[in-house]
Amino acid sequence: MNDDLLLLGGKEFSNRLLTGTGKFGNHGQIPKMLAASGSQMITVALRRVDVSEQSENILEYIPKNVTLLPNTSGARNAEQAVRVARIAREAGCGDFIKIEVITDMKYLMPDNWETLKATEILAKEGFQVLPYVLPDLPLAKRLENAGAAAVMPLGSPIGTNRGLETKPLIAMLIENACVPIVVDAGIGKPSQAAAAMEMGADAVLVNTAIATARDPEAMGRAFDLAVKAGRAAYLAEMAEASTFARASSPLTGFLDEEQP
Amino acid sequence: MNDDLLLLGGKEFSNRLLTGTGKFGNHGQIPKMLAASGSQMITVALRRVDVSEQSENILEYIPKNVTLLPNTSGARNAEQAVRVARIAREAGCGDFIKIEVITDMKYLMPDNWETLKATEILAKEGFQVLPYVLPDLPLAKRLENAGAAAVMPLGSPIGTNRGLETKPLIAMLIENACVPIVVDAGIGKPSQAAAAMEMGADAVLVNTAIATARDPEAMGRAFDLAVKAGRAAYLAEMAEASTFARASSPLTGFLDEEQP
Amino acid sequence: MNDDLLLLGGKEFSNRLLTGTGKFGNHGQIPKMLAASGSQMITVALRRVDVSEQSENILEYIPKNVTLLPNTSGARNAEQAVRVARIAREAGCGDFIKIEVITDMKYLMPDNWETLKATEILAKEGFQVLPYVLPDLPLAKRLENAGAAAVMPLGSPIGTNRGLETKPLIAMLIENACVPIVVDAGIGKPSQAAAAMEMGADAVLVNTAIATARDPEAMGRAFDLAVKAGRAAYLAEMAEASTFARASSPLTGFLDEEQP
Amino acid sequence: MNDDLLLLGGKEFSNRLLTGTGKFGNHGQIPKMLAASGSQMITVALRRVDVSEQSENILEYIPKNVTLLPNTSGARNAEQAVRVARIAREAGCGDFIKIEVITDMKYLMPDNWETLKATEILAKEGFQVLPYVLPDLPLAKRLENAGAAAVMPLGSPIGTNRGLETKPLIAMLIENACVPIVVDAGIGKPSQAAAAMEMGADAVLVNTAIATARDPEAMGRAFDLAVKAGRAAYLAEMAEASTFARASSPLTGFLDEEQP
Repeated sequence: MNDDLLLLGGKEFSNRLLTGTGKFGNHGQIPKMLAASGSQMITVALRRVDVSEQSENILEYIPKNVTLLPNTSGARNAEQAVRVARIAREAGCGDFIKIEVITDMKYLMPDNWETLKATEILAKEGFQVLPYVLPDLPLAKRLENAGAAAVMPLGSPIGTNRGLETKPLIAMLIENACVPIVVDAGIGKPSQAAAAMEMGADAVLVNTAIATARDPEAMGRAFDLAVKAGRAAYLAEMAEASTFARASSPLTGFLDEEQP
Repeated sequence: MNDDLLLLGGKEFSNRLLTGTGKFGNHGQIPKMLAASGSQMITVALRRVDVSEQSENILEYIPKNVTLLPNTSGARNAEQAVRVARIAREAGCGDFIKIEVITDMKYLMPDNWETLKATEILAKEGFQVLPYVLPDLPLAKRLENAGAAAVMPLGSPIGTNRGLETKPLIAMLIENACVPIVVDAGIGKPSQAAAAMEMGADAVLVNTAIATARDPEAMGRAFDLAVKAGRAAYLAEMAEASTFARASSPLTGFLDEEQP
Repeated sequence: MNDDLLLLGGKEFSNRLLTGTGKFGNHGQIPKMLAASGSQMITVALRRVDVSEQSENILEYIPKNVTLLPNTSGARNAEQAVRVARIAREAGCGDFIKIEVITDMKYLMPDNWETLKATEILAKEGFQVLPYVLPDLPLAKRLENAGAAAVMPLGSPIGTNRGLETKPLIAMLIENACVPIVVDAGIGKPSQAAAAMEMGADAVLVNTAIATARDPEAMGRAFDLAVKAGRAAYLAEMAEASTFARASSPLTGFLDEEQP
Repeated sequence: MNDDLLLLGGKEFSNRLLTGTGKFGNHGQIPKMLAASGSQMITVALRRVDVSEQSENILEYIPKNVTLLPNTSGARNAEQAVRVARIAREAGCGDFIKIEVITDMKYLMPDNWETLKATEILAKEGFQVLPYVLPDLPLAKRLENAGAAAVMPLGSPIGTNRGLETKPLIAMLIENACVPIVVDAGIGKPSQAAAAMEMGADAVLVNTAIATARDPEAMGRAFDLAVKAGRAAYLAEMAEASTFARASSPLTGFLDEEQP
């Protein structure tokens, strides 16, 4: 499977599980989780990065070989998201940026339109833009045309662990996408991550489900295995489900009937 | 995870994926699938075993370190199942026996009652009996009392790949069982195997989904990873799903608000 | 629809919603609910019937034109169920009897095997037996052979309002049954009752969802409408679901294209 | 229930089932379906309306007391939708307009953004605008602010009969909406229409499932009953689903235990 690489934003990744830095009991769990999960890209809210370097900086807990994916968490419109992205790049966090624009404070649903506007601006500035959106096929095509490096559709609202509630909508994106589809938000169990990969998603991002498990390190490992399982199944091509049963073992000519 | 062993029928297993010999394109795929999946127990229909040793014997394709689980496929009542079990033991297939009694030829649903009767008889004869049943809580308790080594509830009808359609019924068995619960039949994708393990199943048996994949060897590997993922998640204790969103990243005090 | 009658236990019913007497805030709600729902058969636990006629009798709240379906609630084996049935008949409750044998006190799952034994005995004694069971195809055929007047598979555990969790199992019963299939237990919403009827169920029994609604009378009316809706849809033959969209309105040759 | 009126676009409706004119085997079925279903509003594609009055006009089949809801089917951007709306009004079809802008020709998913633009323009021109959209909470708030008379979220892609696949997304709209929510597209069975109403939707629009049934008139009646059932249940307040069983009938102190 070594040659099944994910090309994302001009970089190659051999691991398809993206992780996040939020909600861990303590920052020291982060490097352990990264080692256990094999995750090669991690999202971090700019607020958590101490730009002035005066206090503890979350970046110190992230190994250099893990690609940073700063996010614009907290932004309520495109303009704010653009500002955060620029600050992140100036602070040395690299060219990758996850656009997250949220106006609804109850369900924390992304604002697709502001996200598209920010994507258009930042892609032109040379960012590798990963917009986080409600899976909406016509919008996803617009994001591609605007130069998005990937599209990140949500499975269910952030932090709910409710899984792939938008599965049929994500399936349309996967079927029609020219850029990688990274399922983000709502994935609460490894089986759900595996299901996303079986559908043909290129990667998944999991934060809450790992960070809030009793044992985040072990849960990071579990998600890594699940993503690999789902990807392998996708490549090995599963048979379709059927309405009627088909015997695995022979059912006819049993015992008595065998003797002529 | 090396010390997380499955104790089944007096034997210890470090792998929780049981496999089967049916439906492979050719027998030569079986040892490759076993190696790739790490499966330590495989079910085989007695009909496929050449007791007279005159023709090709499927047992030749199964490495000695893999435990045989002969099944009574083709039996239509308890008496036939008992006969098959005895023949299997006499033929040197060991003490394990999967009871499979099917009277319905359309959906191939197991006959719970005949299966219980066969279990009662064979457990007294010293067999390690694994009855394949519709998940029915009161019946499962009877199977335990009759001396079953495990209970094997179906996820959905054999060979349909429809997954865990009986999930709420299996959950009751898991919660109340004193013997291992091995989910058998209907599992069509690794994500479904992972989901069964996340629920607390002790193992799963997968045959059709592996044997009929384009690449059975790769699919065997995928299922192994998925079972390990689901088991690890179960042990690491997942958080509950919730109705409302919870932010992974801080949403308040953003940018402008930061400057007093 | 007047000629679409349900023949059950030798009687004809023009209404396919069976109801129950449990859990109402006060007995006075029962006749109002019956009037609003049009239900023509109601189940009542023998314990609630004052055989000695010394205290308030629930039967006083049930109009004479509604058929009584006494149930054996509280029975823990076939013998107890048989005793209750006989007492019910002697008390003038008629020949109908719903067999309910429960040994599991947590999920209150019916004991299929004890239920079958009671059915065999009571059918021979001329009762119209309606056994309440986990939907199990081979068992259902045995119940038919034993002379059951109908089979009552559960949708989900009693009183949970979780709906048709056993839908695929019930579908097998409907497809193969020679007696009416009455879905009983777990139906929490009118939409779920409608779905059972759309599948081809002959009737549904709803108690908890009506009795515990804020307004049981209005909820009884709602369930009556839903059962009629589902039945009408079943008879009018619904189209299949499809993967791809099909336009309801013309999408081609629009506006500009119209002018040659 | 006579006083439970739907206020939509300044008009009062006592019936909450909207219907459509597409896909009927012959136009003569339309007035019969309208009579059977009680539907008081029907959508019609402008293309089907003969503005020049030279050939058979579908409007002749729609009784005067049924409100017309012309739709912009065929429009591929906001400008085209606006043009169709104006033509419809000039042709005497009234002020109601359903905005339908579709750019994706495979799944026929609505283009939310073009739909919003058309809504902004037409609401200012005094139209009663009903935009058909993917359920997207921030967008729905924008549509309200733009003056939409209602929001019409899809259940699943047009004509698929796959039901409420977007249920969690629609629930957010219902919870936060200040205008009526009319679930449109994908509803294939009466049970699904009932489920939408139970959630608190204000109305549903059903076309394909009625028009392509073997008996459209009977199916129209079935949907009417289902919508009324779901609405009544919503008003009568259903109890929650629960994990564990709760007995409907008394389970303790049975028989033997009764005798002191």
